[in-house]
Amino acid sequence: MSRIFNFSAGPAVLPLEVLKEVQEELLDYQGTGMSILEMSHRSPSYEKVNAEAEEDIKELLGLGDDYCVLFLGGGGSLQFSMVALNFLTPGKKGGYVITSTFSDKAMKEAQKIGETSILFSSKENKYNRVPRPEELSYSNDLAYVHITGNNTIEGTEFMDYPETGEVPLIADLSSDILSRPIDASKFALIYAGAQKNIGPGGVVVVIARKSYLAGRDKALPTMLNYEVHMENNSLYNTPPVFGVYIVGKVAKWLKAQGGLEVMAKRNEEKAKLVYDVIDAHPDFFRGYADKDSRSLMNVTFGLPTKELEAKFATEAKAIGLDGLKGHRSVGGLRASIYNAIPKAGCEKLAKFMEEFYQNNK
Amino acid sequence: MSRIFNFSAGPAVLPLEVLKEVQEELLDYQGTGMSILEMSHRSPSYEKVNAEAEEDIKELLGLGDDYCVLFLGGGGSLQFSMVALNFLTPGKKGGYVITSTFSDKAMKEAQKIGETSILFSSKENKYNRVPRPEELSYSNDLAYVHITGNNTIEGTEFMDYPETGEVPLIADLSSDILSRPIDASKFALIYAGAQKNIGPGGVVVVIARKSYLAGRDKALPTMLNYEVHMENNSLYNTPPVFGVYIVGKVAKWLKAQGGLEVMAKRNEEKAKLVYDVIDAHPDFFRGYADKDSRSLMNVTFGLPTKELEAKFATEAKAIGLDGLKGHRSVGGLRASIYNAIPKAGCEKLAKFMEEFYQNNK
Repeated sequence: MSRIFNFSAGPAVLPLEVLKEVQEELLDYQGTGMSILEMSHRSPSYEKVNAEAEEDIKELLGLGDDYCVLFLGGGGSLQFSMVALNFLTPGKKGGYVITSTFSDKAMKEAQKIGETSILFSSKENKYNRVPRPEELSYSNDLAYVHITGNNTIEGTEFMDYPETGEVPLIADLSSDILSRPIDASKFALIYAGAQKNIGPGGVVVVIARKSYLAGRDKALPTMLNYEVHMENNSLYNTPPVFGVYIVGKVAKWLKAQGGLEVMAKRNEEKAKLVYDVIDAHPDFFRGYADKDSRSLMNVTFGLPTKELEAKFATEAKAIGLDGLKGHRSVGGLRASIYNAIPKAGCEKLAKFMEEFYQNNK
Repeated sequence: MSRIFNFSAGPAVLPLEVLKEVQEELLDYQGTGMSILEMSHRSPSYEKVNAEAEEDIKELLGLGDDYCVLFLGGGGSLQFSMVALNFLTPGKKGGYVITSTFSDKAMKEAQKIGETSILFSSKENKYNRVPRPEELSYSNDLAYVHITGNNTIEGTEFMDYPETGEVPLIADLSSDILSRPIDASKFALIYAGAQKNIGPGGVVVVIARKSYLAGRDKALPTMLNYEVHMENNSLYNTPPVFGVYIVGKVAKWLKAQGGLEVMAKRNEEKAKLVYDVIDAHPDFFRGYADKDSRSLMNVTFGLPTKELEAKFATEAKAIGLDGLKGHRSVGGLRASIYNAIPKAGCEKLAKFMEEFYQNNK
């Protein structure tokens, strides 16, 4: 086997230790005589997987009994609608901070359900930054404030979250969940498609204050009612069992690494390796994001010509650096350096970038 | 490794050949240097997986270009709402054939969206049978007719589907999809949670006439609009990649077995082994379903006392026959004998049943 460095934006690299464990127990999960893929979601073995995944995520985030963790299907995109269906009450507005294509999509889904208000937008500048705290204010007709914590396509990230006071704060943290310590108790609800930092495609993790999920409208489609999933510990219907199992293993891996403080340090070092090359040759490597808003997870940049960008991606792939093409909507290049990308991957990428600069400047 | 026979109702047994392939390529999918779990859904490798799974399912069902196959998240339970949201137009009624707890749930979700009509119900007799064709009629105010093809909890199955004429026929075939040849072109839409006959939990397969999905209400939440998923080949957002990959492998396995004719013959032989023991000792093994409505997938029965039922499940498990407890809502015993249960599993079960009868009659 020759594993490459996979810089894809998601689904994305997983820890090799986790994959090896999965492989080893694939035909017989812990002596049950069956694969985890074949296991009833009502079995004690799976209930343990489900409960431990919840507990480990809460432990990593420092959350207590007033929060729950749900594992649902449908991905982050279904959450755009679920947030509005559950929380966008008549007479109130959903407040949206528009820092990316995905924030905009989240708001457009909410507009099908009720009224929205744009609290900030960097759309005119191609979403090159997130707002500074003083740029935001919150009127009392807001049902909630929605932010996109890390903007995968654009390569920007909130390092300081808005202080929304009494207004519930909701965040899509799909691409930076569990990448560094955060004050998770600031949030009424966090959702994250697992396929970037913590698992495979097909499972979305919802972390929410229990009191916020209580009392939802019973007329909602059952599967779109957060309260139903909370009351059933994510087992109202058959969950994405295998995805939850992997998320649980990744959470244990994160704990074994030393937790989120250790991951934050590692992620900062990794990002610095790549950004340093960009900053050393800014006329050649054209960073997409404002420096103050740079993401530790997705490093986005362009080269002087499209031809050079294509050449870069091709030559990188040839030496085992894969997935560096930017999102189809913005072009350019992007290195997604999630938790599971080892430092060696960023070192190899930085070295390649420097050589590519010397050969093509 | 000692694999047991897993008679769980779902998630359920998968073909051992498929699991071994998955295990073998788990760290490096076909020389890509990454796991299928880490692979972008926009990569050529995954697009091939997605396209082949669709083509193989259509081939198995004898469907042509006028049908499409979608792979979605959220499970069969989300389909209950999606069917009504997409097709239950004002002024029309959703016609429901109520043959199980799940048909009833499907109807209850539709009632949140619009008007429904009960075309048949065996609820008073604890869902012991499906209707005979002559028991059903279709008024022209029906938007569609919805049936549950196989009733997992109760152990009944439609062998002849209703002839609904001009009224679109929609079926939940979660627990008998691809278990025998059917005239799939009779259906406007079929949906099936994959976790019984064709894959793991977390992916639902939708098979639909393309013209039926066209022209949906743009005001629907995007993720709940079938047309969006059709136009994007199930790639509007990140799909349950790994689940689709397994479904694709199971479809290839079914083709390698000889297709659905072969599976039907095998499934009939398997079911006969178990039903024959029930019929030989009807005072002891109390079949739940009317004989005319018996399912080939889920064999349901009770014993004279609850104590005997518990003893049966415990002794069976001890010799490697697992998952035989009935659904928590009805109790009793249930052997789910999906495609991937080998004949040897049913032989061993039938032998155990006969011995259990002799020892406990």
